[in-house]
Formats: sequence, C-alpha cells, structure tokens
Amino acid sequence: MSRRKLPPQTPWTNSPDDVEAAFYEALGSANLEALMALWSEDDDICCIHPGGQRLDGNAAIRDSFAQLLANGGLQINAEVQHRWHSVTSAVHSVVERLQVEVDGKTQWGFVLATNVFVQTAGGWRLVLHHASPGAPQTALDTIVPGDVLH
Amino acid sequence: MSRRKLPPQTPWTNSPDDVEAAFYEALGSANLEALMALWSEDDDICCIHPGGQRLDGNAAIRDSFAQLLANGGLQINAEVQHRWHSVTSAVHSVVERLQVEVDGKTQWGFVLATNVFVQTAGGWRLVLHHASPGAPQTALDTIVPGDVLH
Repeated sequence: MSRRKLPPQTPWTNSPDDVEAAFYEALGSANLEALMALWSEDDDICCIHPGGQRLDGNAAIRDSFAQLLANGGLQINAEVQHRWHSVTSAVHSVVERLQVEVDGKTQWGFVLATNVFVQTAGGWRLVLHHASPGAPQTALDTIVPGDVLH
Repeated sequence: MSRRKLPPQTPWTNSPDDVEAAFYEALGSANLEALMALWSEDDDICCIHPGGQRLDGNAAIRDSFAQLLANGGLQINAEVQHRWHSVTSAVHSVVERLQVEVDGKTQWGFVLATNVFVQTAGGWRLVLHHASPGAPQTALDTIVPGDVLH
C-alpha cells in the first residue's frame, strides 16, 4: 500500500509557535519574502492591522506589509497569553510590544493580536492575523527596551 | 466496554454557527445570562471589545457585557466572511453591522470580529471574541436598516 508522501517541512513549519516566532523575526528584519512564506498558500487568508480594515488574500496582505516594512523592521516583543490548540488548528491571543522612537527616546507601543494557524501539507501556516491597538496590561518596569525576543 | 456519556447538548451548542447566532441574538435581546452561557466554562476565555483592552476570564467578560447591555440590546447584523473549521475548533472572521441612532436617524456602525469556538463536553462554546472598529467594505445600498438577521 503506497502512502502519500508529504513535502518536507522547514523548521519554521513544525509548530504554530515556530511559525509565530518566524513571523515576528521576519517583521524585525523587514524580510517580506520570509514573512509571506509563513502564510497559507490557500487564498482564504486575512489580516487586520491595528486600526485598519480587513485585507483578504495574499496580494492585499503582501502590499500592506511591503508598505509597513518600507522604512525598516519592526522590533516586536510578542507574548502569547492564551493558546487554544487542536490537532490541525491553533489560535493564540498575543500582546505585542513594539519598540518605537518618540522624540529620540525609546518607548513601547502595545498591540493586541489574534494569530490563527492551520496544519497544511507543507506544515503549519498562518491564516489570520487580527491586530488592534492596546495599552499596557503588565507592569512596565518589567520591560527593558532592547530586551526584544523576536 | 463502557463509553463516557456526554451531557445532552442544547440547540445552540450543536455547531459553531449555532453558538454564533445565539451570541448575536443574546446581544440583541440584552439577555446577559443567555450570552454568558455561550462561553466555555473553562476560565481560559477572553474578549476584546472595539478599542478596548483584553478581558480575561468569565467575571471580567460578564461585567463588560453587563455594562454594554445596561441600556438595552445591540441590534447587530453579523456576516461571517471567513471560516476555518477543524474537528474540535472553529474560527470565524466576521463583519458586524450595528444599527445605531444618530440625531434621530438610523445609521450603521461597522466592527471587525474574530470569534473562536471550541468543542467541549457540553457542546460548542465561545472562547474568544476579538472585535475592532471597522468601516464599510461592502456597498452600503445593499443594506437596509431594519434588515437585521440576528
């Protein structure tokens, strides 16, 4: 009996956490190709940036990230605060802390994100990134600018 | 061999769509008890209202909806635009159209929501409602005030 051979999985497709880490790394290094490779190849994907409208499909999402990364990477410390995992899908509720320069001083912006991943033949992939403006919910003195994991 | 007997499921727990329809019905009728019964009994649940912070756990979510519904129900026409379903979890990307009165005229407000459901022993339940302000993405002349499904 023959078995369908699955394509080899790259390291970042082994788990939802791997894909998520690679997502924030790609944002940090402004690597648009690496970023877009993390999304499902199915066109049923969507993305909502903070304060923005829903972007449907690969082309619209790629355009938005190209604009977002035009001036360099986004240094984000992403902390997963809730995980709902099933065998073939995963949802993370994340607090993103963005390092930004305001009047020459390093400050933090806060974003609340929901990241959704599905298991595909090529490994775990992102299908939804829903982000909205947040505010600090944890003690700020525990955060040191420069202490960015991703 | 004995089988574990699952508790009986009420009509609104048969599918993610049932729970979602019941969620918007409960908002429309300002029925806080019905609304809260749709959430997972596990305390690992969270809710982000448009422009708001993340609320974790049953008590914080209940308080927020009690405030939201203090002046009556919210008439919402909810349209699911993306569905990612697995055997035990489901994610919906939804456009919510809220009927509001501005200067005596009926107008529509738009909200983008991500609703996440999990299959529990008691049936499908809500574990995450992430909502953020939106804007019209479909032709407004196709929407007639009063034509509210939920």
